[in-house]
Amino acid sequence: MTTTATTARERMLLAKSAARSIGLLGDADKRDALLALADAIDSATAEVVAANREDLERGRATGLSGSLQDRLRLDEPRVAALAEAVRDIAALPDPVGRVLEERTLPNGVTLTKVSVPFGVVGSIYEARPNVTVDIAALALRSGNAVVLRGGSAAEQTNAALVRAMRDALASRGVDPEAIQTIDEFGREGARELMQARGVVDVLVPRGSAQLIETVVTESTVPVIETGAGVVHILLDESAPLDWAREIVVNAKVQRPSVCNSVETVLVHRDAARRLVPAVVAALKERGVTVHGDAEVARLAADVVPATEEDWSTEYLSLDVSMRVVADIDEALEHIRSYSTHHTESIITQDAANIERFLAEVDSAVVMANTSTRFTDGGEFGFGAEVGISTQKLHARGPMGLAELTSTKWLARGSGQVRP
Amino acid sequence: MTTTATTARERMLLAKSAARSIGLLGDADKRDALLALADAIDSATAEVVAANREDLERGRATGLSGSLQDRLRLDEPRVAALAEAVRDIAALPDPVGRVLEERTLPNGVTLTKVSVPFGVVGSIYEARPNVTVDIAALALRSGNAVVLRGGSAAEQTNAALVRAMRDALASRGVDPEAIQTIDEFGREGARELMQARGVVDVLVPRGSAQLIETVVTESTVPVIETGAGVVHILLDESAPLDWAREIVVNAKVQRPSVCNSVETVLVHRDAARRLVPAVVAALKERGVTVHGDAEVARLAADVVPATEEDWSTEYLSLDVSMRVVADIDEALEHIRSYSTHHTESIITQDAANIERFLAEVDSAVVMANTSTRFTDGGEFGFGAEVGISTQKLHARGPMGLAELTSTKWLARGSGQVRP
Repeated sequence: MTTTATTARERMLLAKSAARSIGLLGDADKRDALLALADAIDSATAEVVAANREDLERGRATGLSGSLQDRLRLDEPRVAALAEAVRDIAALPDPVGRVLEERTLPNGVTLTKVSVPFGVVGSIYEARPNVTVDIAALALRSGNAVVLRGGSAAEQTNAALVRAMRDALASRGVDPEAIQTIDEFGREGARELMQARGVVDVLVPRGSAQLIETVVTESTVPVIETGAGVVHILLDESAPLDWAREIVVNAKVQRPSVCNSVETVLVHRDAARRLVPAVVAALKERGVTVHGDAEVARLAADVVPATEEDWSTEYLSLDVSMRVVADIDEALEHIRSYSTHHTESIITQDAANIERFLAEVDSAVVMANTSTRFTDGGEFGFGAEVGISTQKLHARGPMGLAELTSTKWLARGSGQVRP
Repeated sequence: MTTTATTARERMLLAKSAARSIGLLGDADKRDALLALADAIDSATAEVVAANREDLERGRATGLSGSLQDRLRLDEPRVAALAEAVRDIAALPDPVGRVLEERTLPNGVTLTKVSVPFGVVGSIYEARPNVTVDIAALALRSGNAVVLRGGSAAEQTNAALVRAMRDALASRGVDPEAIQTIDEFGREGARELMQARGVVDVLVPRGSAQLIETVVTESTVPVIETGAGVVHILLDESAPLDWAREIVVNAKVQRPSVCNSVETVLVHRDAARRLVPAVVAALKERGVTVHGDAEVARLAADVVPATEEDWSTEYLSLDVSMRVVADIDEALEHIRSYSTHHTESIITQDAANIERFLAEVDSAVVMANTSTRFTDGGEFGFGAEVGISTQKLHARGPMGLAELTSTKWLARGSGQVRP
């Protein structure tokens, strides 16, 4: 289904209009539409891969970095994985229509608070064609229309994916205008999306810290900030060496490029001699560069001196910063200064320090004695992840389908008036 | 407690710092602090009324309108009512520390989602000194620090109230920096508050539609939009005359100046001859001016011709607009075009039309056969009302104390790492 809309604004208005019928679809209809969408992506594999090859060639010609090229690349197995992810989303329970609260007023009026779709979900992201399918499927499962702005580097790929998805909706009698892309309108289109308050109900940016900052700053549409993670682990005085070593190594090397991987390890001074040499050795064995303060450098070999900048750096690579702190107070102070409020974990055997850390650290997920890599919608059992919110409004931490819904109060009476 | 902070930014940072200890206060401590705060307002009555007299004199001198002067005025009984409202808030259950969700992962890690304070709540409002006390008490009850910007017209009154409240906190060993006013920094202070992302966690504007629009547009701090109400009642074909008449009259005249009062009545064409004359007569008997379309004017006397502008006007006065519609589809289309998504009600005996109206109207509260005046935190049984949210993110409809909290996930493990 190609569209006749010729401006970004027109496409957003089409999405808003489509949102009305999408929002009223039942569970089975949404599931069927998503299964059709998955099949359509499979069927369009050749077309999608060809479009992606064009994007990649253009990327190489314009000097796109190797890692961005990798994120952009869609080969046959990756397209198949995208379709499979849509089938997984189809299998999730419908987040719409849940009764969240019920009360009957003394005058007999009944009140029911139910979950309802937002209406139109917008997303701004960068050169990741998988997000195109992912967000469209999550939005549709939760009864929302979607406006996608994926960036010019993936324009051909996104266009091929959106075409296939729109065709699939139309084939099931679902309004194809529920899925819109505005890539072709460039930065001006993105700006219009950020200013589309009243048309787009919520905006979910996905990508670099800079992208998210821009969206938060420039949007009049409410934003769900998904975020950067300068994630901390505190090795407390009583931290067992084996837990300290295994958790720090896991949190750093299991997948260094993601937001829940650890970036800074704080070590209680009275445990530094016991822990630092072994933890640094284990990290180096796995190829990690340790950026340490002077005390860390005294206790372990091959430590790169840490600068002030290291404490606020989200490396997303096989690098970690490490600092010795006098006590839990200094650790909490460090975390307050540098955390991005994503995830922090304490490793300790001291029950009072666990409770204090859990109470005082102001982050979406606060942990004791476990790896920060567990901050993840899949690990939390949500079945799908919209992102990890680092803001406090509406959603905090891993977001599932429920976080793509709003609520509505329904009141049923029989002529009651207010005295 | 006077403050030494000499800029709006410094005061916001003091609030942020105070938020840490305020957020850890237990239920009893917060209740005690609020009762002390109520007593302090009572004790400061003479000082507050004197300060208010200065504000009123300045207001008269600078041509403040009569209705604004009335909103600004605090006499002895009004101050006593403010203190009493604080005692009511003190008696409400603590919204912090509620366990909202619990799960244990297959690996034994336990996850607990608990309610936590936002941290710092900001509020921008206009010449209503009661909001100064109200928001400070609601914020404190929910473990938050507060930054208040009440406008220059009430500056002396707000300063006297804030001084009394800060003294009360200090007398109970609670950090008085948890309550800050930035009135004296004028518009520049308000601008700094709107841009204080990372320091202020959420901003609640209270006041005119224009004020709210400004805050929504200029803020980088997340905003909870409390809203204007262009509220509709649809008199469907089968609406009983007595319900139609009583509900419309109640929704308009019981308190016309508030956001949940009705502004537009839509009447099904096939019921117009039966309903319009009687409903208009009942409204006129109560002093209401009816702004009607041509069909309404044909059916009733003394109807002022409605213009296009009437359909989007929130009168907040003894005025109502009235229009005849062909059917429920045209009614829904009218509501989509002009509603501010606050409250709409259908009066009908048709069960299918009730369900359709409840499902399709995209407003915070959608009603059948009852007065729109019930959209209210007190009526809903919340005990207190922070405002009525007309946005879809975080809170929708009447907001109680729970809506001044965020959430946090606590994870407890014993050495688990991600495979």
